Amino acid sequence: MKFIEDGVCAAQGFTASGIHCGIRKNRDKRDLALIVSQKRAAAAAVYTQNLVKGAPLLVTKANIADGCASAILCNSGNANTCNADGEEVARKMCALAADALGIPARDVVVASTGVIGQRLDISPIAAGMEALVSGLSTDALPAAEAILTTDTKVKSAAVEFSLGGKTAHLGGIAKGSGMIHPNMATMLVFVTTDAAIAPGMLQKALSADVQTSFNRISVDGDTSTNDMCCVLANGMAGNAEITAEGEDYAAFCAALNAVTTALCRMIARDGEGATKLVECALTGAKTQEAADAVSKAVICSSLVKAAMFGSDANWGRVLCAIGYAGADVDVNKVDVYFRSAVGRICVCKGGAGVDFSEDEAKKVLLEDEVTIEVDLNEGNFSSVAWGCDLTYDYVKINGDYRT
Amino acid sequence: MKFIEDGVCAAQGFTASGIHCGIRKNRDKRDLALIVSQKRAAAAAVYTQNLVKGAPLLVTKANIADGCASAILCNSGNANTCNADGEEVARKMCALAADALGIPARDVVVASTGVIGQRLDISPIAAGMEALVSGLSTDALPAAEAILTTDTKVKSAAVEFSLGGKTAHLGGIAKGSGMIHPNMATMLVFVTTDAAIAPGMLQKALSADVQTSFNRISVDGDTSTNDMCCVLANGMAGNAEITAEGEDYAAFCAALNAVTTALCRMIARDGEGATKLVECALTGAKTQEAADAVSKAVICSSLVKAAMFGSDANWGRVLCAIGYAGADVDVNKVDVYFRSAVGRICVCKGGAGVDFSEDEAKKVLLEDEVTIEVDLNEGNFSSVAWGCDLTYDYVKINGDYRT
Repeated sequence: MKFIEDGVCAAQGFTASGIHCGIRKNRDKRDLALIVSQKRAAAAAVYTQNLVKGAPLLVTKANIADGCASAILCNSGNANTCNADGEEVARKMCALAADALGIPARDVVVASTGVIGQRLDISPIAAGMEALVSGLSTDALPAAEAILTTDTKVKSAAVEFSLGGKTAHLGGIAKGSGMIHPNMATMLVFVTTDAAIAPGMLQKALSADVQTSFNRISVDGDTSTNDMCCVLANGMAGNAEITAEGEDYAAFCAALNAVTTALCRMIARDGEGATKLVECALTGAKTQEAADAVSKAVICSSLVKAAMFGSDANWGRVLCAIGYAGADVDVNKVDVYFRSAVGRICVCKGGAGVDFSEDEAKKVLLEDEVTIEVDLNEGNFSSVAWGCDLTYDYVKINGDYRT
Repeated sequence: MKFIEDGVCAAQGFTASGIHCGIRKNRDKRDLALIVSQKRAAAAAVYTQNLVKGAPLLVTKANIADGCASAILCNSGNANTCNADGEEVARKMCALAADALGIPARDVVVASTGVIGQRLDISPIAAGMEALVSGLSTDALPAAEAILTTDTKVKSAAVEFSLGGKTAHLGGIAKGSGMIHPNMATMLVFVTTDAAIAPGMLQKALSADVQTSFNRISVDGDTSTNDMCCVLANGMAGNAEITAEGEDYAAFCAALNAVTTALCRMIARDGEGATKLVECALTGAKTQEAADAVSKAVICSSLVKAAMFGSDANWGRVLCAIGYAGADVDVNKVDVYFRSAVGRICVCKGGAGVDFSEDEAKKVLLEDEVTIEVDLNEGNFSSVAWGCDLTYDYVKINGDYRT
């Protein structure tokens, strides 16, 4: 397996497009994306567990109930959530794309992201559909840009891998910067692959994957209403269709996880206002549940995040977060290290502080990628979680988002 | 019942003192507080549920296992938590106060607050004990000041109330500004009363009270390691001792709740960096659990808090928080209003947005005390939770707290 370029267009038979149609006021920001598979593809998705669900999610769920889809249509600038006419508008979006592409409306996955609770006007989408479809190409960048909101960077990753003697490809794009605390799903992520895999196995692979990828990130503890991760697999790699667990399924899952983990790190690093990626690498837990709960609590703590912004080795806050994580942990066994590209420093052994050089710690923490290593010294389970620091700019971005 | 002055010295037989002994570098900040009851008092306390517990909490728990205490000794500037010699130092603090006051060491409640994981030097406390004891008076202010850390305001409240034909008093002081997300307890709160009440009933009253007071506030979602709320009741009001539920117990609980709720609002309003108090007043829940979970989720949301800082009527974030609160709620029935001293404005009806004047909403939200009213329209349970906005200054204060 190796990382390659081209994101959602890396897999055979996929094209994409992204335009500014007018949902956003800023003409320099694309706001409508389309991803199309030449062949009808197996489709699987996971959705937010928030009880408030964006209307597009309900429509998508119904559309891919048969396990197949051919296209993904996504707008930014408006979440189409908490609107009385939300589902009607989402269905109209599917119909518009279907007409332009000559496919059934139920083969369209639809998604929206942006402000909650403002009606989404269908007219700019209708007016822009012709340009959107005519712009389809194997350049994945315009689509990757068109799904962004407060993101400052495009998030795209792809791999080439061997599958049943054939060369297969799997790539994805993501958006997400604030309201990031996925629960069984994530912000918007679209993955395409030319692997041949039955819809049931695709769903199984995706549902398992998000537990170790998107469910392990947090920017601000707020689980979005519009989280969705969707995979289309069109089978054009020519491998024997994966219909059960085994070597091919494992190869597919490894490729999927390589791309989703890369996207996770990009989302966390580009958290609203963030200056650095903060990773918690946890080892020595008695159970997987404990490992997951503790690592996530550490990267979610506002106080740990603010200390990371200040490059302050305030490890007491890490212990504090471990203590309230809700897991059965012997806090008198906990070791904590701070690590980055320039070094690794022990700050706590057996739950108590050790002498360390503040200057050296500062140097480690000033890097733009910092790992908080926590060893619970109680067992063999481990977990990784990704977050970011809490900065002035997070407050600035969210103090007046709508205007 | 009426509110009166004098905090923890409002009740008969209580004196207090607060000095700078040298734990903090800043000579202008008091860092050692003492509260003493003339008569040995019934004592009750609740403690943090964080697995990492400050050493003073363990010592206090042992000391008041017999239901009685005479004095409270508290330092700020150092939490005496995650230190190998923590309990030994906490016990020495008790012994020093006991010697100076001529009481048994097991009648001393001890508490510490400040940085976690730095050894607490006993020598400034030993050196300052004589001055601390000789400063005892009915002026509650120096003690209220001496327990503060990043707090910008003293937090003190007291009431006078009728109890079994006698006039009783109950007053408290609190500290707390960051690391505020109490779970079964709170930051440091000390309450004194001259009511006569059996230790068991005092504990029962306190444990019930925190569910509707300190457990309903959050500044940053971080449950402290050193949270404690402790009440001393010395019986000098002369009422017949409360030994069972009934009219007197109810009167006592009402007085306790008046003071704790006042302190809660002071803590939330003085949250680190906060510019305003944000209250979520929730009605119409199917169960008490749902009411509590939803109101707390709203005031805990970083996105809601940042919107409040910007006085931005971004009600979609309120709906989002309701949706991930973990309660069984029909989000299509939810109404949301923003209210403050200058008006009340409906922004969401039946889970969908309604037209409203942005200018008018801005005016409402610019006030320094804002209530988010949420009606779930499903039942008769209600709940209130208190928090604050998320500001640049929260990040500033916590980006480099230790230096």
